[in-house]
Amino acid sequence: MTSTVIDSTIFRHIFSSEPMRQVFSDEHRVQCYLDIEAALARVQARLGLIPKPAANEIAAKCTLDIIDMAKLKTQTELIGYPVLGVVQQLVAACADNLGEYSHWGATTQDITDTATILQIQEALALVEDNLTAISGHLADLARRYRDTPMAGRSNLQQAVPITFGYKVATWLAAIERHRQRLLELRLRVLVGEFGGAAGTLASLGADGLDVQEGLMAELRLGQPEIAWHTARDRIAEVSCFLGLVTGTLGKIATDVKLLMQTEVGEVYEPYIKDRGSSSTMPQKRNPISCNYIHACVAMVRQHVAALLDAMVEDHERSTGPWEIEWIAVPEIFLLTAGALQQARTLLAGLEVDAERMRANLDITQGLICLLGENEEITASLDRSDLEKLVDPAAYLGLSGEMVDRVLARLAPNESGVK
Amino acid sequence: MTSTVIDSTIFRHIFSSEPMRQVFSDEHRVQCYLDIEAALARVQARLGLIPKPAANEIAAKCTLDIIDMAKLKTQTELIGYPVLGVVQQLVAACADNLGEYSHWGATTQDITDTATILQIQEALALVEDNLTAISGHLADLARRYRDTPMAGRSNLQQAVPITFGYKVATWLAAIERHRQRLLELRLRVLVGEFGGAAGTLASLGADGLDVQEGLMAELRLGQPEIAWHTARDRIAEVSCFLGLVTGTLGKIATDVKLLMQTEVGEVYEPYIKDRGSSSTMPQKRNPISCNYIHACVAMVRQHVAALLDAMVEDHERSTGPWEIEWIAVPEIFLLTAGALQQARTLLAGLEVDAERMRANLDITQGLICLLGENEEITASLDRSDLEKLVDPAAYLGLSGEMVDRVLARLAPNESGVK
Amino acid sequence: MTSTVIDSTIFRHIFSSEPMRQVFSDEHRVQCYLDIEAALARVQARLGLIPKPAANEIAAKCTLDIIDMAKLKTQTELIGYPVLGVVQQLVAACADNLGEYSHWGATTQDITDTATILQIQEALALVEDNLTAISGHLADLARRYRDTPMAGRSNLQQAVPITFGYKVATWLAAIERHRQRLLELRLRVLVGEFGGAAGTLASLGADGLDVQEGLMAELRLGQPEIAWHTARDRIAEVSCFLGLVTGTLGKIATDVKLLMQTEVGEVYEPYIKDRGSSSTMPQKRNPISCNYIHACVAMVRQHVAALLDAMVEDHERSTGPWEIEWIAVPEIFLLTAGALQQARTLLAGLEVDAERMRANLDITQGLICLLGENEEITASLDRSDLEKLVDPAAYLGLSGEMVDRVLARLAPNESGVK
Amino acid sequence: MTSTVIDSTIFRHIFSSEPMRQVFSDEHRVQCYLDIEAALARVQARLGLIPKPAANEIAAKCTLDIIDMAKLKTQTELIGYPVLGVVQQLVAACADNLGEYSHWGATTQDITDTATILQIQEALALVEDNLTAISGHLADLARRYRDTPMAGRSNLQQAVPITFGYKVATWLAAIERHRQRLLELRLRVLVGEFGGAAGTLASLGADGLDVQEGLMAELRLGQPEIAWHTARDRIAEVSCFLGLVTGTLGKIATDVKLLMQTEVGEVYEPYIKDRGSSSTMPQKRNPISCNYIHACVAMVRQHVAALLDAMVEDHERSTGPWEIEWIAVPEIFLLTAGALQQARTLLAGLEVDAERMRANLDITQGLICLLGENEEITASLDRSDLEKLVDPAAYLGLSGEMVDRVLARLAPNESGVK
Repeated sequence: MTSTVIDSTIFRHIFSSEPMRQVFSDEHRVQCYLDIEAALARVQARLGLIPKPAANEIAAKCTLDIIDMAKLKTQTELIGYPVLGVVQQLVAACADNLGEYSHWGATTQDITDTATILQIQEALALVEDNLTAISGHLADLARRYRDTPMAGRSNLQQAVPITFGYKVATWLAAIERHRQRLLELRLRVLVGEFGGAAGTLASLGADGLDVQEGLMAELRLGQPEIAWHTARDRIAEVSCFLGLVTGTLGKIATDVKLLMQTEVGEVYEPYIKDRGSSSTMPQKRNPISCNYIHACVAMVRQHVAALLDAMVEDHERSTGPWEIEWIAVPEIFLLTAGALQQARTLLAGLEVDAERMRANLDITQGLICLLGENEEITASLDRSDLEKLVDPAAYLGLSGEMVDRVLARLAPNESGVK
Repeated sequence: MTSTVIDSTIFRHIFSSEPMRQVFSDEHRVQCYLDIEAALARVQARLGLIPKPAANEIAAKCTLDIIDMAKLKTQTELIGYPVLGVVQQLVAACADNLGEYSHWGATTQDITDTATILQIQEALALVEDNLTAISGHLADLARRYRDTPMAGRSNLQQAVPITFGYKVATWLAAIERHRQRLLELRLRVLVGEFGGAAGTLASLGADGLDVQEGLMAELRLGQPEIAWHTARDRIAEVSCFLGLVTGTLGKIATDVKLLMQTEVGEVYEPYIKDRGSSSTMPQKRNPISCNYIHACVAMVRQHVAALLDAMVEDHERSTGPWEIEWIAVPEIFLLTAGALQQARTLLAGLEVDAERMRANLDITQGLICLLGENEEITASLDRSDLEKLVDPAAYLGLSGEMVDRVLARLAPNESGVK
Repeated sequence: MTSTVIDSTIFRHIFSSEPMRQVFSDEHRVQCYLDIEAALARVQARLGLIPKPAANEIAAKCTLDIIDMAKLKTQTELIGYPVLGVVQQLVAACADNLGEYSHWGATTQDITDTATILQIQEALALVEDNLTAISGHLADLARRYRDTPMAGRSNLQQAVPITFGYKVATWLAAIERHRQRLLELRLRVLVGEFGGAAGTLASLGADGLDVQEGLMAELRLGQPEIAWHTARDRIAEVSCFLGLVTGTLGKIATDVKLLMQTEVGEVYEPYIKDRGSSSTMPQKRNPISCNYIHACVAMVRQHVAALLDAMVEDHERSTGPWEIEWIAVPEIFLLTAGALQQARTLLAGLEVDAERMRANLDITQGLICLLGENEEITASLDRSDLEKLVDPAAYLGLSGEMVDRVLARLAPNESGVK
Repeated sequence: MTSTVIDSTIFRHIFSSEPMRQVFSDEHRVQCYLDIEAALARVQARLGLIPKPAANEIAAKCTLDIIDMAKLKTQTELIGYPVLGVVQQLVAACADNLGEYSHWGATTQDITDTATILQIQEALALVEDNLTAISGHLADLARRYRDTPMAGRSNLQQAVPITFGYKVATWLAAIERHRQRLLELRLRVLVGEFGGAAGTLASLGADGLDVQEGLMAELRLGQPEIAWHTARDRIAEVSCFLGLVTGTLGKIATDVKLLMQTEVGEVYEPYIKDRGSSSTMPQKRNPISCNYIHACVAMVRQHVAALLDAMVEDHERSTGPWEIEWIAVPEIFLLTAGALQQARTLLAGLEVDAERMRANLDITQGLICLLGENEEITASLDRSDLEKLVDPAAYLGLSGEMVDRVLARLAPNESGVK
């Protein structure tokens, strides 16, 4: 039995995606713990801190099948954190008391934080895949509709004409900025944690930094300059990034649902028979994906505030703020994945009605022509200038060039994505 | 496989409660839909709008075992909403095409919203039970420690003395205000929805209001004055109430965790062997429940903002904001349930160290005595006044009377709760 | 020089209102402090706790002209709170050292909190005035357009017809619920604070509760059951109320701006020559008030979260959370006032184009007619039924009756408002 | 008369700073508009698009003294935006109708957005100055207390020892990461806007991109790849950065106020006579700056959510979301400036009581010694190991080395700052 829509039997693939749900599953989280314990043992054996047979035995037992999840639940409720329960089960699973050499010099939060970073690493790869795919779909649309005129709209009023390709290119430019942000972010964020009880590596003596360096190399994570048990700007920065990405998706969904209005009818979500249908109103074509995106985005932005709140931690290991991350980090990625997946589907099959775009432009033709009766304008323009002016296609400005500018700067790996 | 901590195999009873998870389970939601469809059919048969055999057949089939949940998932992904899929399965399950009489004159959102109200009704009952229990525990503590001196603290500095009973009574007074709010809230919020596609009951002709009245009587809900498909102040008001309740729990948890500090040591979370223990620091006694409460409360307040955002709906049936509720309403109740349960456990077994309270008071005894050297003070007070003044127990003011005032106003049903 | 848009020379009457700015001005805040000090002195003289001449002198000097605001700024920066500076200046202003009897038994926060409640009382009166006016305008619109057909819209798609009066009545019903909430709220919230350093009235001996009762009677505020220096649910509840009110305003603004679209054109913000005009696009008619409402509402909802955060206070006088209120309470009222004023202006002069409403309905006429070709439908309906069905005016359901139901429940004082 | 605490006569230098208030003053905003209009005219004259005398006259008149602020208020209330009013006053101020050549090809939002970027540029410089100063103070503290033992605390319980220098170094490392973020951010964010009504530069013909390039060069801003009138990720990214910075300040303030508790007493805010004093409790030393920081930080995080909300814009020029920025961008910088200034003052004069740190460590000495009675431990450790173990100073691990690692990575310009 599940209770959240993210895990709901019915809604799980609407508000999140299956690969993202895998990343934040209990099973994967525990496997990350075990992977880190195995890596730690290997490194410590290599440095001569624990016997090689102990490292071998520990690494061999660091698989999910040694874990009794029901027991782990009980242990976690008692202790307050799951890592110690995992370690206890690991110790028990190892032959010849060799398990006693596991978790050597580590504290609970070292393992939890490093596991979170491993999960973030995987989750960001999923985000990147989706951004790359979305970038590809947008680039296709921008190219295809580079010169298709439509009304530019300001304050929900028709303003001067643009092309649909130009509109898409403004979305694409934002997606490309997000891809750049992701590159910068990874270097700073994908850093592990290993410091012991208060971060000083006290129980490992002079070897502490060697173990830390070796462990991070083993896990292919950056080595921290100092413990970050209560300096959570990295985690919060990731959440900000997701807030920015979903903000752009919210903008795209807003435009699409407005363009799908009965009275506008310029673009449509991909047609799938019966999708978005209504029991009482069969004539409607609902912007279903846009709705979901809107809702996910509204939640994500509040999760950003929650994760900024989680930065206000006390002393060397915090009393409550850390647990905000336990709730919010999975959810912000899960909901972002939902929004990305809906946006990707939406953009992959977006239907564009160029004739309706042109017809809608004509609604305000008369109004735009009023310009021709403006004395100040006619004073400086002759008749043919004016005719050009009131022909929307002649008033597209640099729409096409702007599209080309954005396309020319696409990140290199765009083309390879389906 | 689950992905949120609320549904996690490991964390589910830490950040939420089992009864609240039942209320928001897929199974219960679908059962609510079916209960409403059954009630609608019964009412419409009674009013002569549909044949009695149809109502009987529909009501007989409105049980969860007719629903194929996997199929419902597929239907929901296609249509965008689960109700129509449930109705289709219900129609198919009824003999002799009698199912065609189900869902008569209703729109998807009528059923969804009324189901949400039924869930809120049950969820508020769980909240009330917990508030009543917490009120009882606080009243016990207030009585028991009515005259136990401790330092009052301002800006985390010892100020003038209070009693522990007095401190608890300030918490209790807030809980009692929440119970009063809940009474007022229910009358306004527990109102069903039944209006058809745009809320005008158009497909039911003149009988519409009779059906609406009968349906709400059947479900024991209030009858709406007009459709509220896009007027969501009732739902948002419920979320505000939960924000207020959890705010108070956050305040209590803050006080408890500060009082549990090594350097203060005046109260403790209930002792359970090994609970809150540490792999590296066996001497510690961690405020585990306080941590969880802190995290739940931090999430709930952001969910309030999300549900206020969901009020900004468009036209007669909204395009995205409604779906915010789908995500946030279950979560805000689930997290509130987690915080309430942790607070209830915490307060049921709170350990109070009256000796340490007294000893801590003595830290600033000297400072308070400085008052005696203040010329302005000694000018108007004689020696025995001063001695009383520097005896904290003589400076408790009306602590005890304040406790009595709060206890005297307790809602009547407090005493019966365990 | 000002720096916020709320106080900006240019924007101040766009994002707030002058009467609300008065309520939260420095001058008025300080005057509230002085009013409370005067009332306290009068009550204490009446109870024989301070000499009558002292009370007379204090009350006579409790006017704003004794206060040196520049000095108060310096005092506040030093002490951290303004009340003590005001008291020091008051003491200095009184003849014959009689000022020494001021502030007797009070603590800084007693005065600050009670002043905040006085400000909230005045601010809520302004909110109520606006709600009453808005209710009046909406009732007028609902009556006038009770039977004016327009498209009901679901998912931004035309659905079944409604009347514009019906649409307005759904807004009106929400406003009426807010007026009911306000009634309930006042009783609980308009309660003063007077408890001394830790709320126990310790420095006033047995007379404490008499002073408290007398002071609250003097100020016409409720008497608290116990100190609420760190139990801030009342303040947070007020903010929630404002969040709910502005949520409804946001919904109204959303509908209006969507209806103002070039392609829809069914209603318009009141025409004021040149208002909402554009330097580059003279043909446009921008939904200016809707824009401002949208922005104010988006800020208010986040301020609600901030004020829920402020509930998580420590011990008897908090260390930071209280100061959140200093920032957020004025702002949430100021921005609410901006939204209310814009909405009031907008609704007072809303222009409705009934012909365009009818013309837009005809867009989907053909689609609705498709119903007539549905075999299941034609099996049970004859030709004249069908003709009625495809005539939108015949498919308005109980739109009119719904309007009447809402109007019949209007709070009594609606009619007297301009 | 002012109404917000940020502009309050009394509180303005508590919750914000004077230089930041200057940046967001009406006067400076209008001056930015004028600077951009002057630069635009210069560039267009250089490109031969407008007459040189016109550019000279326009540039000469682009000073604040031509602006009638009261008139601008009226114009803004009418039009909805201030830029057009400024342009109208500029046109009127220019001799010989030369002002008609101003604002050529620009749209209101081009000027507003570019002015916002100029303000952000200045505001970020103020943020940077403060970060650099804070970094310097922290580096000093880290060096000075590199080897001063104190209790590390986990869950508000004393855990293993650390040094105070180590604690400060964890703060410093976060500040350094923020300085790195700022470097990356500037390149992406400090980009102007110039696109005309719908961003296509339609009214400037083929010269549009040359004008855009020249204008940005003149203003020393980056040239946009395409219009970002409704792609607001840059603005939202700035707000996220401020959320991250203030999150760290909130963490520092939390630690300091906890360490200032009567029962802990290890560090203190700088001593200023009478600062943080209390009318009723003269013995107290309140963490005043920490309180203010806490409150500013709590507001900033909600403003981040508001500015993420502002990303969800419609079409080519938005209908409400943009105005969220008008309110929130100044406030988030103003409140950040308040927090930074308080933190800077706090850290510049932080008092550290090394003796009390040592004394507090001794509280749990006995508990730590219990380790010595643990059989498993005594089996592998001899007596002298144990003695070292229970001597906190021998259990500091790599505290000092960690400090050195952080100091070694300081950004180069740290040393020059006072």
